[in-house]
Amino acid sequence: MERWIELNNRVLSGTHIDTSHDAQALRAYFTEKVNPNTVTFPTLAEKVAYMTEKGVWDPAVFARYHPRDVKAVFQRAYSYDFRFRSFMGAFKFYSEYATMTPDRKQWLERFEDRLSVTALARSSSVEEALELVHHLVNQTFTPATPTLMNSGKANTGRLVSCFLLQDCTDNLDSITKTLSFVAELSKGGGGIGVEVSNLRARGESLRGIQNVTKGVMGVAKMLDNMLRYADQAGQRPGAGAIYLSVMHADFLDTLSAKKIATDEDARLKTLSVGATVPDVFMQKVRAGEDIYQFYPHSLFQATGREFTSIDWTREYDALVANPDIRKKRVSARRVMEEIAVTQGESGYPYLLFEGNANAVNPIPNVGTIKMSNLCSEILQPTLPSTFHAYGKESQDQVGLDVSCNLASLVIEQSVASGDLGRVVRAAVRMLDDVARSTSITEVPAVRRANEEMRSIGLGAMGLHSFLAKNEIAYGSPEALEFVDVYFAAVHYHARRASMEIARDTGFVFRGFEGSRYQSGEHFAQYLAQDFAPRTPEVAALFEGHQLPTRENWAQLAADIRKHGLAHSFVMAIAPTGSISYVSNASASIMPITERVETRTSNKARTIYPMPHLSEMTEWFYEEAYDMDQRRVIDTVAAAQKHVDQGISCTLFIPSSATTRTLQRYYLYAYAKGLKTLYYTRLRKVSIDECLSCAV
Amino acid sequence: MERWIELNNRVLSGTHIDTSHDAQALRAYFTEKVNPNTVTFPTLAEKVAYMTEKGVWDPAVFARYHPRDVKAVFQRAYSYDFRFRSFMGAFKFYSEYATMTPDRKQWLERFEDRLSVTALARSSSVEEALELVHHLVNQTFTPATPTLMNSGKANTGRLVSCFLLQDCTDNLDSITKTLSFVAELSKGGGGIGVEVSNLRARGESLRGIQNVTKGVMGVAKMLDNMLRYADQAGQRPGAGAIYLSVMHADFLDTLSAKKIATDEDARLKTLSVGATVPDVFMQKVRAGEDIYQFYPHSLFQATGREFTSIDWTREYDALVANPDIRKKRVSARRVMEEIAVTQGESGYPYLLFEGNANAVNPIPNVGTIKMSNLCSEILQPTLPSTFHAYGKESQDQVGLDVSCNLASLVIEQSVASGDLGRVVRAAVRMLDDVARSTSITEVPAVRRANEEMRSIGLGAMGLHSFLAKNEIAYGSPEALEFVDVYFAAVHYHARRASMEIARDTGFVFRGFEGSRYQSGEHFAQYLAQDFAPRTPEVAALFEGHQLPTRENWAQLAADIRKHGLAHSFVMAIAPTGSISYVSNASASIMPITERVETRTSNKARTIYPMPHLSEMTEWFYEEAYDMDQRRVIDTVAAAQKHVDQGISCTLFIPSSATTRTLQRYYLYAYAKGLKTLYYTRLRKVSIDECLSCAV
Ligand SMILES: Nc1ncnc2c1ncn2[C@@H]1O[C@H](COP(=O)(O)OP(=O)(O)OP(=O)(O)O)[C@@H](O)[C@H]1O
Ligand SMILES: Nc1ncnc2c1ncn2[C@@H]1O[C@H](COP(=O)(O)OP(=O)(O)OP(=O)(O)O)[C@@H](O)[C@H]1O
Ligand SMILES: Nc1ncnc2c1ncn2[C@@H]1O[C@H](COP(=O)(O)OP(=O)(O)O)[C@@H](O)[C@H]1O
Ligand SMILES: Nc1ncnc2c1ncn2[C@@H]1O[C@H](COP(=O)(O)OP(=O)(O)O)[C@@H](O)[C@H]1O
Ligand SMILES: [Mg+2]
Ligand SMILES: [Mg+2]
Repeated sequence: MERWIELNNRVLSGTHIDTSHDAQALRAYFTEKVNPNTVTFPTLAEKVAYMTEKGVWDPAVFARYHPRDVKAVFQRAYSYDFRFRSFMGAFKFYSEYATMTPDRKQWLERFEDRLSVTALARSSSVEEALELVHHLVNQTFTPATPTLMNSGKANTGRLVSCFLLQDCTDNLDSITKTLSFVAELSKGGGGIGVEVSNLRARGESLRGIQNVTKGVMGVAKMLDNMLRYADQAGQRPGAGAIYLSVMHADFLDTLSAKKIATDEDARLKTLSVGATVPDVFMQKVRAGEDIYQFYPHSLFQATGREFTSIDWTREYDALVANPDIRKKRVSARRVMEEIAVTQGESGYPYLLFEGNANAVNPIPNVGTIKMSNLCSEILQPTLPSTFHAYGKESQDQVGLDVSCNLASLVIEQSVASGDLGRVVRAAVRMLDDVARSTSITEVPAVRRANEEMRSIGLGAMGLHSFLAKNEIAYGSPEALEFVDVYFAAVHYHARRASMEIARDTGFVFRGFEGSRYQSGEHFAQYLAQDFAPRTPEVAALFEGHQLPTRENWAQLAADIRKHGLAHSFVMAIAPTGSISYVSNASASIMPITERVETRTSNKARTIYPMPHLSEMTEWFYEEAYDMDQRRVIDTVAAAQKHVDQGISCTLFIPSSATTRTLQRYYLYAYAKGLKTLYYTRLRKVSIDECLSCAV
Repeated sequence: MERWIELNNRVLSGTHIDTSHDAQALRAYFTEKVNPNTVTFPTLAEKVAYMTEKGVWDPAVFARYHPRDVKAVFQRAYSYDFRFRSFMGAFKFYSEYATMTPDRKQWLERFEDRLSVTALARSSSVEEALELVHHLVNQTFTPATPTLMNSGKANTGRLVSCFLLQDCTDNLDSITKTLSFVAELSKGGGGIGVEVSNLRARGESLRGIQNVTKGVMGVAKMLDNMLRYADQAGQRPGAGAIYLSVMHADFLDTLSAKKIATDEDARLKTLSVGATVPDVFMQKVRAGEDIYQFYPHSLFQATGREFTSIDWTREYDALVANPDIRKKRVSARRVMEEIAVTQGESGYPYLLFEGNANAVNPIPNVGTIKMSNLCSEILQPTLPSTFHAYGKESQDQVGLDVSCNLASLVIEQSVASGDLGRVVRAAVRMLDDVARSTSITEVPAVRRANEEMRSIGLGAMGLHSFLAKNEIAYGSPEALEFVDVYFAAVHYHARRASMEIARDTGFVFRGFEGSRYQSGEHFAQYLAQDFAPRTPEVAALFEGHQLPTRENWAQLAADIRKHGLAHSFVMAIAPTGSISYVSNASASIMPITERVETRTSNKARTIYPMPHLSEMTEWFYEEAYDMDQRRVIDTVAAAQKHVDQGISCTLFIPSSATTRTLQRYYLYAYAKGLKTLYYTRLRKVSIDECLSCAV
């Protein structure tokens, strides 16, 4: 066994946790592994020459700067004497993010190199690059994995990995086109959400012939296969999710595809499933009543309406009363129970509470929110497309899909910086650059999204590690207060940065006109009350920060009305399953699952004690499975008020919990205004699929 | 149980076979079922009006003729007092081919109606229609199922059901396009062959990253799923086959996908597999030597050549000697053994002897023959296509695929007609109309085939029933002599009809220039010898027929040189698994499998005694499984000399046979010049997939 692994493993070997072994492992890893195996160059100029000639770095990036400025950026990066604080963080970065020689025996990049190149690639002036590299090395925020991995590389993969397709219109040409789009995006490493509720159900008519269609599962099986086929060149498995409405006649069929006992033929192995849940369904659950599930083709024939164009809550009674529409009756509670059973077995489906999401949709003028992505934090309006057979592309109607790029604030460092505004602005400017640098012409409705909407998603990680360090219990009143104040401030600065870009560049996203941003409605809460700390404990955390006041918000709302916004959306909290290790933070705004994580790969077992784990903080590192999940939901609800998109919210359930408990949590989350629930994790039940999100 | 079924079942109930019960069943079926449940009209005019108004028949067909002429065609059809000669024939026609009311309770068409409408739809003058309906009702030949089912219908399905795609070029855009083409064709009821040998093998490099590709099986799984998804609207299952070279590194992998014990993940349920076998492989098998299987991407990188562009026999040694090409060594006999084992278990793979097929390829100037179709009787040159991502269609390179429409002579009736030339000419003219009426714009390389090549495939059925009736043993010297003379004459008349169409219309298929038709090489055997009967027994069979002489052939060759040919190919012998029942003939030129067939559907068991079965003919109705298969191979070899494409040749093996026996048959078939072997059927082993071809 390698010495650093052995040392790392000693953390857990005695009778108590001894994190000093981790520090030794970290040192050994650098002195014995990384440092001796890093290719070094006498000068930076020689390094840049070598790396660009070898086709590793993109020469175009360096051509934009004077060599002196390039040097300044690298010097700035190295000036902070950055040190990883856990073996796991270093190990993860150096084995997954840093570029190596083709034989993977030596490193060509150190941490500072990767961040310098990222800063240069994502900036348009040396000032911007210096500012960005400052944040990157100090880890006040981190770009999402693909941005960090691929920025400034010559044979670059994509910078964006999150796509939503609402292409799956109910005809064969659109379906096969969607398959090809999924292949295209998956090949580039994208995680893809696909809306499928418009597909006619199993046993509907086809060209007038009754009872022959194969329904959603037929398409789902093909998507499932395609994701496994077109992965990121074997580096990362393909990843995707379908979203299907609980009001669709195929819902229960599709749900059971995620059950473990399902026979191979009807099982979805790679594809995840999300359920879109309208208010009317939740009302029926509460009332203990039956609900009708509808057949989309019959609906279309009777009304000329597509399934996703229906407002299920408002139009439900009229549709039920229409005798021409085929539908089936089922107990709403039984459907809910099936959801809970399937979640208990597999972690799926995700839930998207349509009513909650659309109630605060800032751009209802563009469309309604009908779906989400692989991690259920992206929530934007989409419009369906219709595609035609070969040679008839000119008849295609290109709708609106979603391309969303992500970054995450590291709460501890962003607070420690003393200037949250500066951090957020740098993050937004970087994301803006990512959005501008991404043009996915192969998928026309995604290209439209890139060009017209330029949506970004700034999130955050390390809530629990920050709270523990400050000896605040997760989900406590102080913690909720912190979340409320923090995300209100992030929202203010992010929106302001977006307004400034619009003002300075003249680019305003399409749909701003007529939006709730323009009317100011979206900012109403900030004009009605101040989001300032109420307790001294929380006030202390924000010491030195300028927090936005009602007046600031009023000014911002006025500026926005005047200049517009460059981005249709600015926030979304992703799971940060991978990047949080590198950033010495707990993942996202979720509680930790173990004080000391043990990860076993085929090669070795590695031990990861939570950041700042000590006898002092241990008490505040309550493990998620031991918590009442209402504390998680309350935390997410507090953040959600300030997040224009969504939050990946995982429920952590002990294996002893009943499906009844789960259902209670759904109702609670729904009542608290949560827009989505990501998957459910059961202690001691390993979830195969969640690995793909944790990488 | 319905009375006709009961009567039919009595055929087998006593101690000996009593076919008189079948006649009673037939009568009962008509008097008690068909006749009382057929919608009748006072006049033909009223029937036509009703049928066109109801959207059953295509008004455009009737608009082309004077009502008087329409009437003449129907009257001609009814004038022959056609009578089905077996219950099964009538049952099959009336349950599968005749149009019914939407509730399927009543018939809207009788046999004569369907054929009259077909004749009108497929002709351009009343004279032609009268001639055609004469042949159709007298069953001197029958169109393939889709032509017979869909001709003249308003909401018509396609007339052609046989397609070959060589689109599967080794890049993701071409692969997803191929998937969409397969969906498009399968939806229209087409059976599709797809060439996949150009795909890089499992474990090759992708974008320079080693050892990551999923190879042929990844694509095959998606095709398999797509075929199940896009069937003929639930009426007929989707059907397709991939063709893969034995020289491809993935060959054994893919083969095992058809084994029964293979785990679900790697199994192909719907997709059939064909193996293309070059001469060099057969030589190595004979010599007991090893053979190398090649990795296409490595081959491409080292030589710039696509896998299917290689002449494996001529270039083998040089490619083996090239150290830059990745390959693996395996015993040729072991590969052959694996083929036999898999055939024994599943019936698959088909075999395509590339050397034999290409040695007599009449249009080598167009390309080489690399693949076949679902039933392995279509053999034409193809050219690969390359497709690009959405919006880049203008860069696409459209190759040449195949669209082939089929019809089959009924040997007994065509001989009985006394004028084989007249029969064949009518069949070719009908097929020419089918080819002209088919334009599949959705699949560009198939459209090119339609427009430029206009290939047709006239085959034959009822060889065994004809021989038995004439008390000649299948595979005997007289039988082989008959086959030789019959198909030589068919070839002459078919080619002549094709020349006449070229002469009269000016349409010459693209590639005639430079072909072996133009040079006359393709007709060499007919100028060197007469194909006239040698024995009095066979001469008697052709009594009254004008058989083509050497002089006739010399004249024809000269006419062809002068006028060209309208069709790149004219012959192909399909299995006729379905249509032969309706035509009171044994299937294709294969021996019968049972003197009395028993077919069990979920509804009922039906009994089908072979045509003309009697104490006299019984002896000549030797069952296929009891025969030395060399007699089958000899029969096919005798016909193959005259068939420009191929012949579906099934091997019938008793369950006791060893894989060694099978391999002997392969070698024998290869030595006899057979171009393909269709699947192998084992007595007492039911082959799931063969059902789809038998329908
Ligand atoms: N051959 C088929 N087998 C199974 N499903 C099919 C087939 N063709 C289409 N479908 C499915 O039926 C739905 C309608 O497809 P499409 O619009 O392409 O057919 P269509 O020919 O226009 O028939 P309709 O008039 O019923 O819409 C889609 O969900 C599609 O995937
Ligand atoms: N993401 C992927 N995962 C698995 N197989 C893939 C992927 N992308 C492409 N392939 C397969 O690899 C082969 C090459 O595909 P394609 O030409 O589209 O890739 P490429 O990006 O041009 O890479 P290369 O330079 O190696 O050709 C095809 O067989 C294709 O199906
Ligand atoms: N296996 C995957 N392949 C491609 N994209 C993924 C995958 N898993 C997640 N994503 C995308 O990345 C986004 C961020 O997920 P996250 O877990 O925060 O990743 P990271 O920590 O690597 O930045 C998700 O919203 C999703 O769209
Ligand atoms: N299940 C199927 N679906 C679509 N086409 C098929 C199917 N089976 C066979 N075919 C096509 O029809 C052609 C003729 O097959 P054959 O058995 O002679 O049919 P039939 O007797 O119905 O005319 C085959 O070469 C193949 O291309
Ligand atoms: Mg349609
Ligand atoms: Mg390529």
